[in-house]
Amino acid sequence: MVSLQGRNPAIQPLLAILQAGEDDDVLQINKKMAGKIGLNVTHICLTKGCSEDEIVEELLKLNDDPRVHGVFLHLPSTSLTSRVLNALKPEKDVDGITDLNMGRLVRGDLSNSFVPPIASAVLDLLEKHDAPLEGKTVLLVGGEGPLCLALQCLIERSGMVALKSHWNSNVLQRQNVVRSCSRWLREQQYRPWRLHSLKLQPLTPVPSDIEISRAQTPKPVTQLAEEIGLLPEELEAYGRNKAKVRLSLLDRLHSQPDGKYVLVAGITPTPLGEGKSTVTIGLVQAMSAHLKHNSFACLRQPSQGPTFGVKGGAAGGGYAQVIPMEEFNLHLTGDIHAITAANNLVAAAIDARMLHEATQSDKALFNRLVPSVNGVRSFSPIQISRLRRLGIFKTDPAALSMQEISTFVRLDLDPSKITWQRVVDTNDRFLRKITVGQASTEKGQIRETGFDIAVASEIMAILALADSLEDMKNRLARMVVGTSRSGQPVTAEDLGVSGALAVLMKDAIKPTLMQTLEGSPVFVHAGPFANIAHGNSSVLADKLALKLVGRDGFVVTEAGFGADIGMEKFFNIKCRASGLRPNVVVLVATVRALKMHGGGPNVSAGAPLPREYIDENLSLVAGGCRSNLKKQIQIAHLFGVPVVVALNVFKTDTQAEIDLVCQIAKECGASDAVPCHHWAQGGRGSVELAKAVDEAANRPSNFQFLYNTEMPIVEKIRTIARKVYGADDVELSPEAKSKIDYYNQQGYGSLPICMAKTHLSLSHMPEKKGAPTGFVLPIRDVRASVGAGFIYPLVGTMSTMPGLPTRPCFYDIDLDPVTEEITGLF
Amino acid sequence: MVSLQGRNPAIQPLLAILQAGEDDDVLQINKKMAGKIGLNVTHICLTKGCSEDEIVEELLKLNDDPRVHGVFLHLPSTSLTSRVLNALKPEKDVDGITDLNMGRLVRGDLSNSFVPPIASAVLDLLEKHDAPLEGKTVLLVGGEGPLCLALQCLIERSGMVALKSHWNSNVLQRQNVVRSCSRWLREQQYRPWRLHSLKLQPLTPVPSDIEISRAQTPKPVTQLAEEIGLLPEELEAYGRNKAKVRLSLLDRLHSQPDGKYVLVAGITPTPLGEGKSTVTIGLVQAMSAHLKHNSFACLRQPSQGPTFGVKGGAAGGGYAQVIPMEEFNLHLTGDIHAITAANNLVAAAIDARMLHEATQSDKALFNRLVPSVNGVRSFSPIQISRLRRLGIFKTDPAALSMQEISTFVRLDLDPSKITWQRVVDTNDRFLRKITVGQASTEKGQIRETGFDIAVASEIMAILALADSLEDMKNRLARMVVGTSRSGQPVTAEDLGVSGALAVLMKDAIKPTLMQTLEGSPVFVHAGPFANIAHGNSSVLADKLALKLVGRDGFVVTEAGFGADIGMEKFFNIKCRASGLRPNVVVLVATVRALKMHGGGPNVSAGAPLPREYIDENLSLVAGGCRSNLKKQIQIAHLFGVPVVVALNVFKTDTQAEIDLVCQIAKECGASDAVPCHHWAQGGRGSVELAKAVDEAANRPSNFQFLYNTEMPIVEKIRTIARKVYGADDVELSPEAKSKIDYYNQQGYGSLPICMAKTHLSLSHMPEKKGAPTGFVLPIRDVRASVGAGFIYPLVGTMSTMPGLPTRPCFYDIDLDPVTEEITGLF
Repeated sequence: MVSLQGRNPAIQPLLAILQAGEDDDVLQINKKMAGKIGLNVTHICLTKGCSEDEIVEELLKLNDDPRVHGVFLHLPSTSLTSRVLNALKPEKDVDGITDLNMGRLVRGDLSNSFVPPIASAVLDLLEKHDAPLEGKTVLLVGGEGPLCLALQCLIERSGMVALKSHWNSNVLQRQNVVRSCSRWLREQQYRPWRLHSLKLQPLTPVPSDIEISRAQTPKPVTQLAEEIGLLPEELEAYGRNKAKVRLSLLDRLHSQPDGKYVLVAGITPTPLGEGKSTVTIGLVQAMSAHLKHNSFACLRQPSQGPTFGVKGGAAGGGYAQVIPMEEFNLHLTGDIHAITAANNLVAAAIDARMLHEATQSDKALFNRLVPSVNGVRSFSPIQISRLRRLGIFKTDPAALSMQEISTFVRLDLDPSKITWQRVVDTNDRFLRKITVGQASTEKGQIRETGFDIAVASEIMAILALADSLEDMKNRLARMVVGTSRSGQPVTAEDLGVSGALAVLMKDAIKPTLMQTLEGSPVFVHAGPFANIAHGNSSVLADKLALKLVGRDGFVVTEAGFGADIGMEKFFNIKCRASGLRPNVVVLVATVRALKMHGGGPNVSAGAPLPREYIDENLSLVAGGCRSNLKKQIQIAHLFGVPVVVALNVFKTDTQAEIDLVCQIAKECGASDAVPCHHWAQGGRGSVELAKAVDEAANRPSNFQFLYNTEMPIVEKIRTIARKVYGADDVELSPEAKSKIDYYNQQGYGSLPICMAKTHLSLSHMPEKKGAPTGFVLPIRDVRASVGAGFIYPLVGTMSTMPGLPTRPCFYDIDLDPVTEEITGLF
Repeated sequence: MVSLQGRNPAIQPLLAILQAGEDDDVLQINKKMAGKIGLNVTHICLTKGCSEDEIVEELLKLNDDPRVHGVFLHLPSTSLTSRVLNALKPEKDVDGITDLNMGRLVRGDLSNSFVPPIASAVLDLLEKHDAPLEGKTVLLVGGEGPLCLALQCLIERSGMVALKSHWNSNVLQRQNVVRSCSRWLREQQYRPWRLHSLKLQPLTPVPSDIEISRAQTPKPVTQLAEEIGLLPEELEAYGRNKAKVRLSLLDRLHSQPDGKYVLVAGITPTPLGEGKSTVTIGLVQAMSAHLKHNSFACLRQPSQGPTFGVKGGAAGGGYAQVIPMEEFNLHLTGDIHAITAANNLVAAAIDARMLHEATQSDKALFNRLVPSVNGVRSFSPIQISRLRRLGIFKTDPAALSMQEISTFVRLDLDPSKITWQRVVDTNDRFLRKITVGQASTEKGQIRETGFDIAVASEIMAILALADSLEDMKNRLARMVVGTSRSGQPVTAEDLGVSGALAVLMKDAIKPTLMQTLEGSPVFVHAGPFANIAHGNSSVLADKLALKLVGRDGFVVTEAGFGADIGMEKFFNIKCRASGLRPNVVVLVATVRALKMHGGGPNVSAGAPLPREYIDENLSLVAGGCRSNLKKQIQIAHLFGVPVVVALNVFKTDTQAEIDLVCQIAKECGASDAVPCHHWAQGGRGSVELAKAVDEAANRPSNFQFLYNTEMPIVEKIRTIARKVYGADDVELSPEAKSKIDYYNQQGYGSLPICMAKTHLSLSHMPEKKGAPTGFVLPIRDVRASVGAGFIYPLVGTMSTMPGLPTRPCFYDIDLDPVTEEITGLF
């Protein structure tokens, strides 16, 4: 009675045409129409005169079949009973027949308001795809009214194919068809995007970063969003070149399979950096613009401090950049400013609270904290949370005993045990250690404290690890700001400030969409400090990107520092928080860094490079490959993930050096090793790398964590030190030991570990290059970011506030007030 | 030979139809068409068979006539010679005939690419105007092709009027007509806007501010922008509800006459505030939504500090608000964050420079400040500026003598004379006085300093007073941050940081467009602290708004504090900087404040209002009117501007009290005095006020400044104290005197004066209400904001950093992580 047809129903959504016998000509037209827009047709032919029950039964099946995109009711009007129409789910109704017949709209409404939206939807759908418009198809069904004529003419004159069935319908039907097609097209994200690539014509010699950036006109971000399948309501534009993307996308694409997840990490770098960001961007340019894979780069937002301090942008460089680079490097969409505001609100709340507690009785504090409003006292929800944590389950303020009042109103913070610092996004070294509260209004409550750079705030680490608004809010509430005199941790929620923090951060949680020089999509989101936090971009940006690229696409994300730190934290902290599993690690190496590890002389910023780094020197290269490179490959393999080595080629590298690196890398277990030239050539220079990544992504990956979080804290630290760094053992200071005891006692023992170690050596000694062995890793102190969710052992001293040099690069930065062009920014 | 026709050529742009004799039917159609879209027609009838010369001569005249918007060539094809076509300026060619005939485009090109843009332009033009679309007219000329049919159908179905002439033309012609009409419509800003008002249905009792705000859905800001005549390229959307407006608008509307300029000021307020912001917003709602005048509100951006400290939004209140109020009160478009970043970069530069100077020789400093790059040393432009100021006109670093090097490299800042403070946008009282530089890395260079709230930064005052990007940049460069040991002022440019400051502030200079509850446009821009700066919103927002509303429109802007401070500074500082002249002052009064001035008991925040303020008390009201209100009216008259008193009615006010205020206000010289009910009723409640303002704006205004800036500083201060405050004289402290001497010596003597005085009394004594006399105003100290461009004498102590109370309002602020709704924010 029912026949199912379809070329490949498993992989392609279907348009089901429910037809009551005969009229095969029309069926053919419908199938052709559907085929033209990429829909596969299942023709469900019912026998002529089949019963209402049979039609409804068929409809219910189609309603629940996830492969069926929409249903076209090709039935005689006598069969279109209200029961049949009620049975069809509105979202599967491509021709609007249910709306129409349910009388929700009347014809009179249509004339004024419906035409522009339809025309607009058609144009929207068609115009924003790449020009020329020829070859686009619109399913235009029946009718001979002036509107239909108008649309048809529009379509035909545009060189698009308009197909028309005999369907005797009206405005609403066509509107639904158009909207449905439009929605369908957008939602099918694992189809290749129709991404309009921006043409690059690399110059030699390569101009400055800002000149290259300025020479390219980015696509409007609304166009980019449309190309990658975002709906207009999911986008919040910030000017023409960047936009925040709403998290509701995750719900809409909930059932979409994730793309391939590629991590870019590096060998132990020289102080000059080895170009992980440019490799990341170059790889995505190659994937998108040259190999036509859906692909996305996920990058960290840089601190504004270094932008005005020491040269070095974070938007990539050369012909592998995010554009416009000045917007990337400056305020962006304000996330770091929001973090600064939230962080400093906590700080102000801490000191103000200590002052008020020091100068008021329990009763006075209670009267102010729970004021009588029109004669009624009540707790705010955040105060009830605190009462619960204190074990007080009363909700009527009048019911509290004096003892309970005292416990409730006094956080009793120990001034010497406040761990919360203020932050600014400026390299301001004089704020490293300060004394606050010296005005007479603060009544002698002075204390020593300090400012960190904004990206070192725990709130930044939370932004990077949160996987929803609710998760972020809960983490913000859990942040520990200090300890009470009785040794209890005091949280942001105890201060009553966590709701306000969530309000301040509600827009920051949405990743910012930008593009590369070749028009490929980039998410810029979060940038936690790599030395005291985990140094990776956000979980949410990666998750959104993985849904947007779809099953056959690629998301390339970057880990801060060398693989021993950034990659290890990416796996053990970020992947643990997100539940995402990487498919491939791209390990970035340079001949320069390899020579250093092979025994070359010291490399330092500002000083000229020694000759060894300019002339061919195969033995230094081989030494670096067989020590540091080999070890970093092995670290990735500890986690069960295939490695592709990307040799970021400099113009002084010789062919023999390049060949040698690739050869040894493969001997050491890399799936592949390829030179890449993105800096000088853009995506074209990274096509070989993209192919190698594609290949490796199809290999089996047996991802596993390095440790179980239930292991004791010391064991987790020891595991990382031995297996990753190559240490013989660890040695804990008494302070570190007592902190670990305290954290265990407070129930933080099962948090993962975030090592605060130098990135300039696999060991804790920056001068030890290659792959040092035979050392014991000293743990000076241990701290916790309870809201972010990790324990961070300090191996040596970590600066959390950079300084300005004698001649900061702001000396060269200027703005032309007429053209509004910026000069001197990299 | 030539006849000119037209209803009122002086005030309305013309469409000239150049016609060679006869064919009057077509002429009538063309005139009707043009009339429908608001164009006036000048029909220039040439005799049949007139010569090419005659036609060209006529064309050249039309080309140069600024009133003529476009020319329609209604000539036989034999007259359309290439000379004739060349004579017509392309921008005046409304029917595309020159393009067409010059062969710049060929027919084949048209099919694919031209239809969507035309349809898009038509829809753009029509759809974004208020619904319903009926009554809109498109000039659709001739042709019977499918495109024409398509457009016509679209238009007719939309209820728009399509008019068709017989013109035998093609695609390009129609495109030009449509574009030309569209451009013309947009550029004619002094036509009444077709502003779509949002309907308000006020509830009783009035719900909370955030409930009212949330219940109203704002128009998309792109729609609002279109309605008020902004071009898409002049807008930078920040999400759906707010957008920055580019300053290029000032160039485009350069020749447009300004609208009426209305200042809202207030009588001396109670500590609870008397509602200037709600009056401002209510007035614009009445003007726009009820009286259909083009009108714009210009408001200050509030500091985020108080948002989380003590309740009190700045987005208005009740049914007179800017929406969405949470976006207004939180990060907005990041301007205050940009100011914070810029301000703190200067601070970091100061301390780092002092450290580097303290620890390096002249030679080392020079080598670092002017480094050798590839063997070449050169000065950056900002260094050359410094050299010039030092009287050194060399540009080759090698040419400097050792003495010149020393002078150049050493700012030699006196640590005890640094006036630059750091800022945060948080109420953080513990930062009022701090000691910085206590880390060992700063080598003992400790010093005492402090943080102000961000809006107290001089950079905020500059943002508010700058009238172009260039002006802002120059003011930033001139900012004095401290004094050298030899007594010379040291500027931001000396620090080398002024270009970077301009870069950080390049987006902040663009005003942010939002809307009121009734959909009227609002600019939110700048919010300098009213006690140490001038407390007014930006010059640029006012200028843009005055152009946008056009000659018959109104711009309503607000001055901080009472009229004695905010209005006086508005006139003497802001109007002096902008060159703008106010037409009307709206003076806000409340029965509550008048009773206080009439001798009522003390009013303070947090405490219940005494009975006198709740029950009718005509004698207290009369006392307040005859003292403070009368004096404030007289102050406005000192400047020659008419005053309308707006009585902001509270529900406890009796009719007799209201009538009494209005009666006495008029006796005291107010042009009019009206009660207003915007808080409870929205714009409808302020219609009487709007009518009174309209009336007063048509009276002559003889604006004059209170003092000439060339007067000695002391005389300027004395003039304000006597004429405005009613003091007998001023008394300067020795410190104030020596500062004045120093400023005179440095050439700052002709800056205007920005008094830092309490707003709670006309005198310096907050407890003296009414109109005190017989006092001497003490000047404790005098400071200068050289970049902003004013001298500010301190009358008493001004706090520049608020604190948090025991129970800050953040206790009630929360975010629902599912709906993303904010609760507890006012």
